[in-house]
Amino acid sequence: MTRFSTDDHPHRRQNLLTGKWVLVSPHRAKRPWQGETGDPAPTGGPSHDPGCYLCPGNARTSGERNPDYPGAFAFDNDFPALMPDNPAPEGGDPVFRVAEARGTARVICYSPDHSKTMPDMDVAAIRSLVNCWAQESETLGAHFANVQIFENKGAMMGCSSPHPHGQIWASDFIPTEVADEDREQAAWHASRGRVLLDEVAERELASGERVVEANEHWLAVVPWWATWPFEILLVARDGVGRIEELSDASRDALASILRAVTRRYDALFNASFPYSMGWHQRPAGSSDPAAWRLHAHFNPPLLRSATVRKFMVGFEMFGESQRDITPETAAARLRALEIDA
Amino acid sequence: MTRFSTDDHPHRRQNLLTGKWVLVSPHRAKRPWQGETGDPAPTGGPSHDPGCYLCPGNARTSGERNPDYPGAFAFDNDFPALMPDNPAPEGGDPVFRVAEARGTARVICYSPDHSKTMPDMDVAAIRSLVNCWAQESETLGAHFANVQIFENKGAMMGCSSPHPHGQIWASDFIPTEVADEDREQAAWHASRGRVLLDEVAERELASGERVVEANEHWLAVVPWWATWPFEILLVARDGVGRIEELSDASRDALASILRAVTRRYDALFNASFPYSMGWHQRPAGSSDPAAWRLHAHFNPPLLRSATVRKFMVGFEMFGESQRDITPETAAARLRALEIDA
Ligand SMILES: O=P(O)(O)O[C@H]1O[C@H](CO)[C@@H](O)[C@H](O)[C@H]1O
Ligand SMILES: O=P(O)(O)O[C@H]1O[C@H](CO)[C@@H](O)[C@H](O)[C@H]1O
Repeated sequence: MTRFSTDDHPHRRQNLLTGKWVLVSPHRAKRPWQGETGDPAPTGGPSHDPGCYLCPGNARTSGERNPDYPGAFAFDNDFPALMPDNPAPEGGDPVFRVAEARGTARVICYSPDHSKTMPDMDVAAIRSLVNCWAQESETLGAHFANVQIFENKGAMMGCSSPHPHGQIWASDFIPTEVADEDREQAAWHASRGRVLLDEVAERELASGERVVEANEHWLAVVPWWATWPFEILLVARDGVGRIEELSDASRDALASILRAVTRRYDALFNASFPYSMGWHQRPAGSSDPAAWRLHAHFNPPLLRSATVRKFMVGFEMFGESQRDITPETAAARLRALEIDA
Repeated sequence: MTRFSTDDHPHRRQNLLTGKWVLVSPHRAKRPWQGETGDPAPTGGPSHDPGCYLCPGNARTSGERNPDYPGAFAFDNDFPALMPDNPAPEGGDPVFRVAEARGTARVICYSPDHSKTMPDMDVAAIRSLVNCWAQESETLGAHFANVQIFENKGAMMGCSSPHPHGQIWASDFIPTEVADEDREQAAWHASRGRVLLDEVAERELASGERVVEANEHWLAVVPWWATWPFEILLVARDGVGRIEELSDASRDALASILRAVTRRYDALFNASFPYSMGWHQRPAGSSDPAAWRLHAHFNPPLLRSATVRKFMVGFEMFGESQRDITPETAAARLRALEIDA
């Protein structure tokens, strides 16, 4: 009988952070594609766009004018998905279950330059963004259970404004995905007496197969259980659970690994690489605060080229996540690129 | 203090089938959109396309030629994500967890006509598709734990061939989403002594607020917990758990409600309406077979128009699902359309 090979044979891998499985079907990428081809994301363009709501000096939809900001700049979202003082719904119906939701939403412009996405920024500019994240997380964390920092990059990822920016949605509840990670990390800690992501980082570094970038403070890896074709997990190696706990040295190292990772992404298909990026950090009310390790996920949709993406539809929606190339192949391709970091 | 209103105030609703929560932010749809606008899906076109792998009489990539099929036609996928007799991986590593996955993948052409999606087919043609689903489910169900029937409609939903078709991925494992529904339906049954979806259907019919279409055998509703803007849950009212258990009368009624629902979708933005549709039915090895009720989900991405969609990115990926218009509004808009069913 043929021996099992991860490159040839469908199999399932388990995501230890969520407990969910993903189906790996390595030979599927060979099928012909007569489906959607998106537009390759434009790079460059003007440094200031008079029609942009986020450029320095311009007016936003609220009428408020942006200051002439020099680096990362955070402000309240004019169309927040969460508000700090809603009235609460009446609960109690077992079929139509409802719960209150309060919070706040912030926008962070990465740079005054309309044309500069993260890989185009220098390490110092990314470092100012890291500080801004840490500051926001600390301030919002004093009021809200969860501080969700994320970025949707590129029109393909639903970004509603081309000016490089990220968002923060802070909430008085622990959102579903964070609750899943809280539960799985706590269970691991209880059963093995170790922090889940510390063990994962150790094993990934030892194997090297899926490592994309590493420095003393950070590891960037296509995780064993990656769902998106070129998904990356960025793990803090310093024992911290929240972004504001990072030391100066670790913030420097974060800025440089963020630049390297995003430059690899842009180099892969020679185009501005779309993704959603999100930080996960210890929420207030965690069931085991010591089980948490700060980390970020990069979920990029591209699969075959700058225009052909992976769709999480059909089987993925109603069955389970499925991927077409192995995480090992994805990591090797990202590692092999020449970048100027 | 202002009274809570589902139309004005962010709140969370719980999906009873998965246990997951969704954040509802009704005022968010008012924000300006400078993001991606897709191409409106073309309707019509030629009835036969010589370059199509799925049209009758044409050769597929495997070299095999399609027969001159008159109605719904099922065959083995030339690029299956699951195969019936893989070797098994070696398990046992607690960090890199792996499991075997075996199964089979089928393609179902809905009609010989290259240009006819479900809403363009007459009730008799849809009825032949229903029979084909039932037949396939019965045959595959004899060998595999789960028979996942689904359709990705439209390039926006990752459909890799424009010929109207659906797929079936049958597996020797219960996929994550089905396992979640199995667990939640069993828990409901155990705690309330009733079938979850029977109670839901009863309450939705009594309220009427979210009902889109109903007949003696079926209910189509924008569920209380809908995630996608115009999501629909189609529930069997006949006490059946699998599609092959449907009576003739129920199959007739299914064909007619499928036509009505998909025609409403096309009428909403006056364009071929993309979606992923998937059936959920009792798997072999269910923890409580009597708790299951056959149902289908329609997950359509469009939000504002034929070209502007809802993106499940950023907060949705790392926090939890979020929607911008209430399910009640979505149902009212779908209900108000004039269709010829
Ligand atoms: O099978 P297709 O149509 O080639 O591919 C489509 O459906 C599959 C099953 O949902 C997905 O895995 C693919 O990402 C999608 O593009
Ligand atoms: O906030 P934006 O950029 O207008 O909107 C984008 O990000 C949000 C948060 O992930 C999503 O809910 C929207 O679907 C997406 O288009």
